[in-house]
Amino acid sequence: MTKILYILPAVAETVDERKRYLSQYKCPETEVAVTSLPEGPRHLLYYSYGALVVPKLLKIIKGAEKEGFDGAVIGCFYDPGLREAREIAEKLVVTAPAEASMHIAATLGQRFSIIATETKSIPLMRENVIKYGFQDHLASLQAIDMGVLDLQMDPEETKRRIVQVAEKAVEQDGAEVIILGCTEQFGFYQELQSILGVPVIDCGLAAFNYAEFLVDLRNKHGWYFNKKIEYLSPPREEIEAWNLSDIS
Amino acid sequence: MTKILYILPAVAETVDERKRYLSQYKCPETEVAVTSLPEGPRHLLYYSYGALVVPKLLKIIKGAEKEGFDGAVIGCFYDPGLREAREIAEKLVVTAPAEASMHIAATLGQRFSIIATETKSIPLMRENVIKYGFQDHLASLQAIDMGVLDLQMDPEETKRRIVQVAEKAVEQDGAEVIILGCTEQFGFYQELQSILGVPVIDCGLAAFNYAEFLVDLRNKHGWYFNKKIEYLSPPREEIEAWNLSDIS
Amino acid sequence: MTKILYILPAVAETVDERKRYLSQYKCPETEVAVTSLPEGPRHLLYYSYGALVVPKLLKIIKGAEKEGFDGAVIGCFYDPGLREAREIAEKLVVTAPAEASMHIAATLGQRFSIIATETKSIPLMRENVIKYGFQDHLASLQAIDMGVLDLQMDPEETKRRIVQVAEKAVEQDGAEVIILGCTEQFGFYQELQSILGVPVIDCGLAAFNYAEFLVDLRNKHGWYFNKKIEYLSPPREEIEAWNLSDIS
Amino acid sequence: MTKILYILPAVAETVDERKRYLSQYKCPETEVAVTSLPEGPRHLLYYSYGALVVPKLLKIIKGAEKEGFDGAVIGCFYDPGLREAREIAEKLVVTAPAEASMHIAATLGQRFSIIATETKSIPLMRENVIKYGFQDHLASLQAIDMGVLDLQMDPEETKRRIVQVAEKAVEQDGAEVIILGCTEQFGFYQELQSILGVPVIDCGLAAFNYAEFLVDLRNKHGWYFNKKIEYLSPPREEIEAWNLSDIS
Amino acid sequence: MTKILYILPAVAETVDERKRYLSQYKCPETEVAVTSLPEGPRHLLYYSYGALVVPKLLKIIKGAEKEGFDGAVIGCFYDPGLREAREIAEKLVVTAPAEASMHIAATLGQRFSIIATETKSIPLMRENVIKYGFQDHLASLQAIDMGVLDLQMDPEETKRRIVQVAEKAVEQDGAEVIILGCTEQFGFYQELQSILGVPVIDCGLAAFNYAEFLVDLRNKHGWYFNKKIEYLSPPREEIEAWNLSDIS
Amino acid sequence: MTKILYILPAVAETVDERKRYLSQYKCPETEVAVTSLPEGPRHLLYYSYGALVVPKLLKIIKGAEKEGFDGAVIGCFYDPGLREAREIAEKLVVTAPAEASMHIAATLGQRFSIIATETKSIPLMRENVIKYGFQDHLASLQAIDMGVLDLQMDPEETKRRIVQVAEKAVEQDGAEVIILGCTEQFGFYQELQSILGVPVIDCGLAAFNYAEFLVDLRNKHGWYFNKKIEYLSPPREEIEAWNLSDIS
Repeated sequence: MTKILYILPAVAETVDERKRYLSQYKCPETEVAVTSLPEGPRHLLYYSYGALVVPKLLKIIKGAEKEGFDGAVIGCFYDPGLREAREIAEKLVVTAPAEASMHIAATLGQRFSIIATETKSIPLMRENVIKYGFQDHLASLQAIDMGVLDLQMDPEETKRRIVQVAEKAVEQDGAEVIILGCTEQFGFYQELQSILGVPVIDCGLAAFNYAEFLVDLRNKHGWYFNKKIEYLSPPREEIEAWNLSDIS
Repeated sequence: MTKILYILPAVAETVDERKRYLSQYKCPETEVAVTSLPEGPRHLLYYSYGALVVPKLLKIIKGAEKEGFDGAVIGCFYDPGLREAREIAEKLVVTAPAEASMHIAATLGQRFSIIATETKSIPLMRENVIKYGFQDHLASLQAIDMGVLDLQMDPEETKRRIVQVAEKAVEQDGAEVIILGCTEQFGFYQELQSILGVPVIDCGLAAFNYAEFLVDLRNKHGWYFNKKIEYLSPPREEIEAWNLSDIS
Repeated sequence: MTKILYILPAVAETVDERKRYLSQYKCPETEVAVTSLPEGPRHLLYYSYGALVVPKLLKIIKGAEKEGFDGAVIGCFYDPGLREAREIAEKLVVTAPAEASMHIAATLGQRFSIIATETKSIPLMRENVIKYGFQDHLASLQAIDMGVLDLQMDPEETKRRIVQVAEKAVEQDGAEVIILGCTEQFGFYQELQSILGVPVIDCGLAAFNYAEFLVDLRNKHGWYFNKKIEYLSPPREEIEAWNLSDIS
Repeated sequence: MTKILYILPAVAETVDERKRYLSQYKCPETEVAVTSLPEGPRHLLYYSYGALVVPKLLKIIKGAEKEGFDGAVIGCFYDPGLREAREIAEKLVVTAPAEASMHIAATLGQRFSIIATETKSIPLMRENVIKYGFQDHLASLQAIDMGVLDLQMDPEETKRRIVQVAEKAVEQDGAEVIILGCTEQFGFYQELQSILGVPVIDCGLAAFNYAEFLVDLRNKHGWYFNKKIEYLSPPREEIEAWNLSDIS
Repeated sequence: MTKILYILPAVAETVDERKRYLSQYKCPETEVAVTSLPEGPRHLLYYSYGALVVPKLLKIIKGAEKEGFDGAVIGCFYDPGLREAREIAEKLVVTAPAEASMHIAATLGQRFSIIATETKSIPLMRENVIKYGFQDHLASLQAIDMGVLDLQMDPEETKRRIVQVAEKAVEQDGAEVIILGCTEQFGFYQELQSILGVPVIDCGLAAFNYAEFLVDLRNKHGWYFNKKIEYLSPPREEIEAWNLSDIS
Repeated sequence: MTKILYILPAVAETVDERKRYLSQYKCPETEVAVTSLPEGPRHLLYYSYGALVVPKLLKIIKGAEKEGFDGAVIGCFYDPGLREAREIAEKLVVTAPAEASMHIAATLGQRFSIIATETKSIPLMRENVIKYGFQDHLASLQAIDMGVLDLQMDPEETKRRIVQVAEKAVEQDGAEVIILGCTEQFGFYQELQSILGVPVIDCGLAAFNYAEFLVDLRNKHGWYFNKKIEYLSPPREEIEAWNLSDIS
């Protein structure tokens, strides 16, 4: 059995809803848990909001490892705290939506477009595209100009706007795959896919299934993050001496 | 149940051995088949050998789709015929070692090195690294100067040489992940991994498990290759009118 | 005297017409031959069509070398089989339209646009631009949405559409040179050039004249493809032992 | 008068020493303040240590703005929290060592090498080089294999090791400028510069003087971070409603 | 005291006006001098005009060094003669508008657009963006289609056109910073900045203040151009033996 | 008949020797002329030397056009004044060694190395590699540490050093083609080629033959430099009004 923890890295009432959503798409042998933060921001549009939640996120990661989880997903398309989480993990597989979606999208077609909620997000998304190495595979970054918290308020309007910019991405920018660049754009991809006729990636589901895949590779082959260089863990003595309780 | 066909795209006596090898690492619900070519070259070191086998490979791909396979792996690190296979496939998932290994390696660490058999292979490998977008993630390309057909002859010598160049890749070139850049380097990765202390990717296994993953995504989400632009299939009328029997 | 073989790598009735066309632009000492395929596809829009013709193409290449040709042109803008042909060639110079056109275009201005027939072609063309290293010199890729076989049917309509997208390429995308990205767009460039006021490259003629140039460099300086690494030929013993008749 | 706050983003006893150091190199009209963290890690070699200090750092930034500082320097070569700090700043100029050093180094010569303390740091440094756009200007990344806290323990050994790898960077990698890639390598650059004969950038001083420069540009020209897109500040209502005290 | 010479590298009547302009933005301890050429072209739109003035420019640079200037600015956005000037300089700091503007702009936001006067300038500007390493930071290059000498003729029309293309750059191309890509667009940036709401860089002022900054770094830290490789000065004996009076 | 002028852009006594050298490799219908400068530097190792000769070079270019030359070669591997020359040319074809050599080398193998005389040259050569778009095709830049004027003094020593660094380039850096990066390394390539077993490009001959090729394309197809944007000529009225005699 594979235990995966999906973390909503913000205050959210949708833990149960998200669990039901993920459960529809999990592998038979996967057990899903979903958690969110008890306090703090309700979305991570701002860089500083992300910075505030990362220590709490790392505490959750550390706890998940101790409780015997196999994998964890950081459920925000900015992939906040991903490298830090991998650094403190010892066996736990950690992944996140942008990384997972881009690997999948680049396999399904030559170039993809990302549909952001607001223009504010685009610089960081572009930076992540470059960081993960998919710059040549980027057709465009397009925003629908809706707040994160509004996406599920008026689903018809959300879909309408996504279709509008996605069609532009396909026809004008040459996108062959669409990535929905916000985990709160969940529940829409199937319908959008049938309207647009190109693959539409729900980034939260992509991350969840990619976590299952990476756990499988770890279990079968021992393929796990490099723990000697990039993801070398901090030494236990320092963590204790300095009382770094979030990562101890 | 998921049916995956692993194609050894050359003349090979190792069909059963390869099947046993893959069977150790398959998902429970996967059924594995392995096939090879009845005639032609015994390895694909040369570009022209690859060109000669692709039409036969496409015929196998077309047959696999008709027989109800879910996925197919083109078992050569040059990924010969990958784009052509996806073009003629309608529902069949097709992947190949270089693509799969690089996606996995780039997830496990910042930069990887590829261990080639001969220097001759390096230009095409470099080109594929660029094509798949992993140029910034390439630490180096290193050859062990052994023929493809010699790799399994003297396994100890093969391992000795791989360890030698892989250690250089890790220490001098800054590689965090090693990709064994030939499917005939199979059976070695576990031992190499424990010697080197960094993830060592067996490219054939990577492709096989990536095929399982992609089939899963297709089944659950309908995420499949873009069939409207890049992988648009040729029209049935042309195939028939022109007697293109390999792809009909 | 220099003997150049121009290969139409598909079934075509236009062998004589093409020979007359090339003859207008050849060097005085060049002898032109044109050949096409006896069976198979009539165009190479699809990747898989290209794969089907490459073995036949290699047989022609091998034959041309034996017959004492100095150079050969693979007459399709996808440059199918180019690397394979160079690998099996021993003294024969081989080139192709995309390679030749891009070298010329990048010399005549900072950035070029390529006019494709259909959107389907664009991903492979983009990949080739990157492969040949001209990414920073690409202004745009534009399609006229006509089938390859329709280009010569209604020349006025073809020219009208090319002018339309080429003007857009020049004015909006900043192209300084236009490459006609299909060898079947032959016969148009002179008129287009006088309408557009920028150089318009006929890719088949570019390849033909580039072949003459490369033969000249080979003859005078011994500058020929690197036959020790990238274009190392397969060993005669293997070709014979495995009955690889297309390349023997 | 220009007030600049230099933040040692870790627990440190060297606040006064650093203040004296910076005071030697400040502009006449600059007033320097130095601060450090009351608790937490003593260095930021690990990604997760950086994540733990960023919220505290943002609180300091917010406080500095309220107290009327003109500029702030985040004194760690990873540039932790830089983008977050700029986002919450309204008039305060914020900069950091990697950004500042690379702009200066790329002006003084074509390519620079960065001298890291440990190999662990190299992946993030490489990522930052790419993020800031200086990839073509990077000659190499070299580590001296000393812990951050050991750098000032045995200054002679530290200098000896830096000279050793810097000479290699200049002679083998073609570096024209050396960046000391850790703010704890302070106090060494003048001597190293005279030994090596190429510019050697002390990254903490670079950041401090760059902060003075950016404050000057802000005061004279109103040139300040784009606050409408990338560095748009979070809305006051959200900060209050969600009790985000570190950034309020 | 810091003495900076601002060179208008063409025939110009605006020496006094430019001196007054720069004087408004200089540091208290800076002494400004402005000079222009006695004969030759009145603008440098054409590459060949630039080539004609560089020898005269180098003579001025050499003279400035002898007269004890600390810094010199080559006042044209093409940065003509910048590398040559640094090569012959021994202690004199030399900088130019494109270099300075791009370093500043890339610090203030992720991507910038450059507003050129004429389309003719765009290829060289793009080349300089790549040369300085800011390719990933370029949003677009836009021309207002006015001659250099017309910019100050009808300031209202100039501003109207700049606003028009700059708004397009911000809204369509995602520019976060605007660079006025001609030193003759001086006097406009403050007003444009308040209209556009994003930083607008006056490239001549940027270069002037960057020169002050670089002189300061030279004085305090000895950070100066690498004079051993890239900017190695020609030997005195050659200059004399060959009567190279412009640089002697 | 095609008239080509090869310009030695420095003071040189080797005009006749160079003419004999080129005459061995010219097309039958080509008439060769060689010229050098009457005064100025004897080599162009320094940027500033290049700047001093460009106005004289442009005067020669202008004269060559008036005298009815078809093509001109600027015989220095820095390609000084190339863009300026194309700008003032109206029908004259102009090319230069770096441009020509890189186009040829990138056709003959995947990656090339350039053998420079001195380390000083490497930054500009690297910049030109990037400018012409061959960055992915560069294996390495290597210097033999000899002065330009010494190359023909002790030919045996010159060859010995070139062989030494070229072997390193082939074996360690993966070069498939060697470019001799100085026109004064003439007369050596044939012997080096037979020693090294890979193509060795004499950059002056490459430029000369490329000029013949470009003239041929101009004559046959009207393919000539874009004269509307990048290479737009300066207006006659300005040249006259401002007495720009070198380009009038």
